[in-house]
Amino acid sequence: MVVYDLIIIGGGPAGITAGIYAARQKLNTLLITKSFGGQIARKAVGIENYPGFEEISGLDLIKKFEKHLRRASARSDGHKIDIERDGVRKVKKIGEKFLVQTTGKNTFEAKAVIIASGADPRPLEVPGEKKFIGKGVSYCTTCDGPLFANKKVAVVGGGNAGFEAAIFLAKFAKKIYILEYSEKISADVENQERVKKTGKIEVIINVQPKEVKGEKFVNSLVYLNGKTEKEVNLAVEGVFIEIGTQPATSFVKGLVDFNEKDEIKVNPWTSQTSCPGLFAAGDADEVPYKQIVIAAGEGAKAAISAYEYLQKF
Amino acid sequence: MVVYDLIIIGGGPAGITAGIYAARQKLNTLLITKSFGGQIARKAVGIENYPGFEEISGLDLIKKFEKHLRRASARSDGHKIDIERDGVRKVKKIGEKFLVQTTGKNTFEAKAVIIASGADPRPLEVPGEKKFIGKGVSYCTTCDGPLFANKKVAVVGGGNAGFEAAIFLAKFAKKIYILEYSEKISADVENQERVKKTGKIEVIINVQPKEVKGEKFVNSLVYLNGKTEKEVNLAVEGVFIEIGTQPATSFVKGLVDFNEKDEIKVNPWTSQTSCPGLFAAGDADEVPYKQIVIAAGEGAKAAISAYEYLQKF
Repeated sequence: MVVYDLIIIGGGPAGITAGIYAARQKLNTLLITKSFGGQIARKAVGIENYPGFEEISGLDLIKKFEKHLRRASARSDGHKIDIERDGVRKVKKIGEKFLVQTTGKNTFEAKAVIIASGADPRPLEVPGEKKFIGKGVSYCTTCDGPLFANKKVAVVGGGNAGFEAAIFLAKFAKKIYILEYSEKISADVENQERVKKTGKIEVIINVQPKEVKGEKFVNSLVYLNGKTEKEVNLAVEGVFIEIGTQPATSFVKGLVDFNEKDEIKVNPWTSQTSCPGLFAAGDADEVPYKQIVIAAGEGAKAAISAYEYLQKF
Repeated sequence: MVVYDLIIIGGGPAGITAGIYAARQKLNTLLITKSFGGQIARKAVGIENYPGFEEISGLDLIKKFEKHLRRASARSDGHKIDIERDGVRKVKKIGEKFLVQTTGKNTFEAKAVIIASGADPRPLEVPGEKKFIGKGVSYCTTCDGPLFANKKVAVVGGGNAGFEAAIFLAKFAKKIYILEYSEKISADVENQERVKKTGKIEVIINVQPKEVKGEKFVNSLVYLNGKTEKEVNLAVEGVFIEIGTQPATSFVKGLVDFNEKDEIKVNPWTSQTSCPGLFAAGDADEVPYKQIVIAAGEGAKAAISAYEYLQKF
């Protein structure tokens, strides 16, 4: 069995940058990811804060990142990066070797591992939510928004992500409700003004979602008005959930130290976790600011650290 | 007198990224820099490890960064970024206000400061070096290399920077000597192979430079062979110095804590220095890996931290 120098888990900005650096250092590397892009692929509006690109769609930026990775791999003199399209179920360490088991039940071995698995959308955790995934419930506005032409939809979450999702949906849907749990809208002023301008987005506060209902497809969202304590049955055919993310780190539980948010603890200078040879970068670790360019920088750090660690073998 | 929200010192990847973020947060910002680019502007070979650009010259990347900054500034609804083309002589804190004095003897005020002044080339510190700056002695191969067509030149420094400088000079110069202090070449294998291929670069080890000599212009470099202990007079018309960098941080001496390398100590998660309201990012701080994408990520962190700090006013 091939023992890789390095396995990178994740195909977002941190994982891809780690891959570019690993290829240039001529490490035998495997990158495991279900798809490229991470959270960028779900971004509903253009990206304006990754230096070098004044304005670019998430999809276009990720295409450029992926192309860069493939080119670095092609130029690495036979140490090219293998790519496995899968999720990860478990990472174990046996002696000095890491075993990475994928969802598809393959096992890969490496001397070092970088976790750049980012974060997944946080679910509402109400009845009906799981049942209607792909049948009206969505965590990805850019993926599913166009399917809701001339329909009524709800966006759960009154932060910037929720407002940006609603602005994107306004191109397709007939009517959009933004539902916010608290009394206060946290989206920034610019997004609030853009929502107003569409003329078809209604913002409702004090919303405690209770259930997603439907038959074959979603037909309503039931919520409690936290102020009046009345139950409301909101007729919508789509429910977009934009209430934040949670780190996708369950597959290393028990192997490394976490903080209280389930983020992996690291030495911020070297990306080293509590487990020697295991590094973490991007939104899966405890970096307080979740930004594309910060995640990319962390990916570079982790790859350089992994390279230094591998010199001892 | 205008009191800025934020003064950013430095126009390399860290400073420009901080500026892009500051403009988007609508902070009244002044960016002070002698020129844009920092160390990128001195890079002799293409950049292949800034994610999104498979291969780009330092000059082109910096142009894109600068254009991005100007666009973010133009879109910031009147909170545009002022740019002062100057060096910085001293930063002081009086009460809660920072005073930044430039080399050109202007003084600017701000509530917060980000130091992204990067690093300067390290000088050889031998007689004649200072005297012949611009007359044969250079710290910037890309700037000055083309002036040495058909001449003999020396590059001091056997690391990657020295080798890359020599490869660039091979396009112009007749003969190039790479002079390395120790017995060991630290440039990577790829650069060593490329140097060989040019057929006009000679690598000499055990070189202890003693003096740069000349009349109007440089005509030789005197060095001691560390092994034979013989003095050698090497006839060259150009001396390119590539022996590393030193942080450009002298203007905050006494105000913030430094490490033993004169790098500014920071909290790596927030870029906060030992002086409240003063942040540092990029090669001026103690981040162990000096990379463009890491510096850019740090610039973003510092700007977000500065924004949070400014909320208290």
